[in-house]
Amino acid sequence: MNAEILTVGTELLLGQIVDTNAAFVAERLAEAGIDVYCKTTVGDNAARIEAALRQALGRAQVVLCTGGLGPTEDDLTRDVVAAVTGRPLRLDPAVLAQIQARFARRGIPMPKSNERQAQVPEGAEVLENPRGTAPGLLLRLPPDRTVILVPGVPAEMRPMVTEMVLPRLREAYGLRGRIRSRVLRTVGVSESRVNELLGDLWEERNPTIALLARSGEIHVRITAKAETEEELARLLDAREAQVRERLGDILFGRDEEGLEVVVGRLLTERGLTLAVAESCTGGLLAHRITNVPGSSAYFERGAVTYSNRAKTALLGVPDELIAAKGAVSAEVAAAMAEGMRERAGTDLAVAVTGIAGPGGGTAEKPVGLTYVALAHASGVEAHEFRFFTDRDLNKQRAAQTALDLVRRHLLGLPPPSLR
Amino acid sequence: MNAEILTVGTELLLGQIVDTNAAFVAERLAEAGIDVYCKTTVGDNAARIEAALRQALGRAQVVLCTGGLGPTEDDLTRDVVAAVTGRPLRLDPAVLAQIQARFARRGIPMPKSNERQAQVPEGAEVLENPRGTAPGLLLRLPPDRTVILVPGVPAEMRPMVTEMVLPRLREAYGLRGRIRSRVLRTVGVSESRVNELLGDLWEERNPTIALLARSGEIHVRITAKAETEEELARLLDAREAQVRERLGDILFGRDEEGLEVVVGRLLTERGLTLAVAESCTGGLLAHRITNVPGSSAYFERGAVTYSNRAKTALLGVPDELIAAKGAVSAEVAAAMAEGMRERAGTDLAVAVTGIAGPGGGTAEKPVGLTYVALAHASGVEAHEFRFFTDRDLNKQRAAQTALDLVRRHLLGLPPPSLR
Repeated sequence: MNAEILTVGTELLLGQIVDTNAAFVAERLAEAGIDVYCKTTVGDNAARIEAALRQALGRAQVVLCTGGLGPTEDDLTRDVVAAVTGRPLRLDPAVLAQIQARFARRGIPMPKSNERQAQVPEGAEVLENPRGTAPGLLLRLPPDRTVILVPGVPAEMRPMVTEMVLPRLREAYGLRGRIRSRVLRTVGVSESRVNELLGDLWEERNPTIALLARSGEIHVRITAKAETEEELARLLDAREAQVRERLGDILFGRDEEGLEVVVGRLLTERGLTLAVAESCTGGLLAHRITNVPGSSAYFERGAVTYSNRAKTALLGVPDELIAAKGAVSAEVAAAMAEGMRERAGTDLAVAVTGIAGPGGGTAEKPVGLTYVALAHASGVEAHEFRFFTDRDLNKQRAAQTALDLVRRHLLGLPPPSLR
Repeated sequence: MNAEILTVGTELLLGQIVDTNAAFVAERLAEAGIDVYCKTTVGDNAARIEAALRQALGRAQVVLCTGGLGPTEDDLTRDVVAAVTGRPLRLDPAVLAQIQARFARRGIPMPKSNERQAQVPEGAEVLENPRGTAPGLLLRLPPDRTVILVPGVPAEMRPMVTEMVLPRLREAYGLRGRIRSRVLRTVGVSESRVNELLGDLWEERNPTIALLARSGEIHVRITAKAETEEELARLLDAREAQVRERLGDILFGRDEEGLEVVVGRLLTERGLTLAVAESCTGGLLAHRITNVPGSSAYFERGAVTYSNRAKTALLGVPDELIAAKGAVSAEVAAAMAEGMRERAGTDLAVAVTGIAGPGGGTAEKPVGLTYVALAHASGVEAHEFRFFTDRDLNKQRAAQTALDLVRRHLLGLPPPSLR
């Protein structure tokens, strides 16, 4: 049982809009246990829509088309589907009445062109569209093919797919299988390192695993197929346990749970407070921490000490130390963390100093060199990292590493080390 | 002259990520005057990648593939392209050396699996990837076909396409027609207001105008077609002048020029320095300012005073004032700005205090209520704004408004007022 997605719209081929519909439809179909092997986008051109539709019908049982159902001349999907399936279009009085009623409610006469939207291929089921003028259409082609047309407007398409299309597909094809994915997030390791650690799990089927690189993190996606929610949960839990065993402490969270969320939860559980002193991350670290609703309960303050004066004035870092070791040094990072912890009166204070670039690098202190320090009840520790990317990524990696240092401290783990 | 885009990745077919690469590539190709008639997505499956590639090569002169160039088992694009084009893979010592050097710089041994990324189809041109380990590949297939492989990571793919792929296609196919867009950015106004202001310009052709809502800004995109760069520049300049005349001071920048860049340039031109005091924006304001390379020349420090204690300790805001007016008030915003300017010794200090939400709102001080204050040589000013969105957007809008307040002050314009 597999499906293909055909998205129609010249604007998609001009790159003027990103095709979020295809991702939405693909995810819903996957969850219903319907494999999608191919996704095609063509413009508002009858010949190319027809070619793509014929190919899709040659490969898949279900073809779901989004877009091209509007009232204008270049809305061609209806006509092409009618031609390819040999189901001539007929004006459906009931649909026409609904469209007219819609305009009447808004106090506008229905433009003639909207009549096109009441054209229905012979034998097609009409899927009502309470949110717009273009109804969806579902054609069953014996023995087992189905063509579905839904509008391109996301707000109209999404509920139609979820509430009308999927139940009909489940029923028509007796689908009991479901697919569900779970994402496990790692920090501080390369994609190839995670790949190695997972070793034998690559051979496993159902659940399968895959790696995704996401904003300085490597994510392991576990995807399971089953007939019941219970079975899905059992399969995912079992594989998750294996992945956790192999990845150990580089694994920090699941699904939408970012490092700032994990750190916030750990601080809350332990009733601890945090302050941050930032140089090269320039506020990003505090920004991420305060993106978490309720963070004011454990986040006391942050200082963005971009100048040496600020490091001295706000954190009490001695001028002499900066002069002797340089602002980007383990010693200054440690002094920043200690100074902040003392002044903020928090349980923990984390500090970051480094060279974000593109300027400011030297032979022995190149762009990307970063020191992250943590001050806690039992002292202060500073660690060196080398990120060799651009300014944005260096800031991201440094903030990510600082959050991971806090996480690891709270869990009693060794400090992060890039592997 | 036409091209097809082939994006490879099972995660795209599972709908777990939206395919922004395809839109980016499509837009760049369109700008070069290359028509894209079809865009296909397949998963990490050799047979389906091969089928899609053969079909694309049967229809288009240029096939650009994104994704599947990583070091792992399921990165198959290289192998399939080698098989389909009959260009066997050979280990390229130069590429291997670059990848090894990349790991060496980070002080990590190169995992064996990364060797895959040094495999180059016979006769292919290697497109260097300074941002990652996967180089791009360009194969010319006589008489007139070209297959291009670029990484799926947007930060690596985008510059490679713009700087390396497009120039080679222009040259190889003697492309002269060009389409170019220029984006003019506005702040503090609604889309419908900008729409009104542009009035008659909507009728104009070449260049045409379009509106895009982007991260709390309304952008006006001007798109021109011409055969020479000179003609493009002439057309765009003329239309830009008209748009500028109609939009006036809500227009702040062009193309990639964000408010933080504009503010940085104005501060540099005037030889002025800036410090920030943040409550509800939680570091986002400092983060945006320090995203600009060279910002250390004018940005002295920032304070994220999330607690009242921090507002008093770091900015000298009187306890009594906070008690009397509340931390979210015009008076406290003004005191934060003045306190920061005095302590940082900067020419300007901007402060933000507000209720980001979801918690913390009351009847007379609802979520979204925000005060932005600016302290300067001639005094301090505070302004009230009401953003009624979610936590993330409230932070964004507040930071955006604070930057616009600085911009307007530096240009001698009235303070921002949401229209």
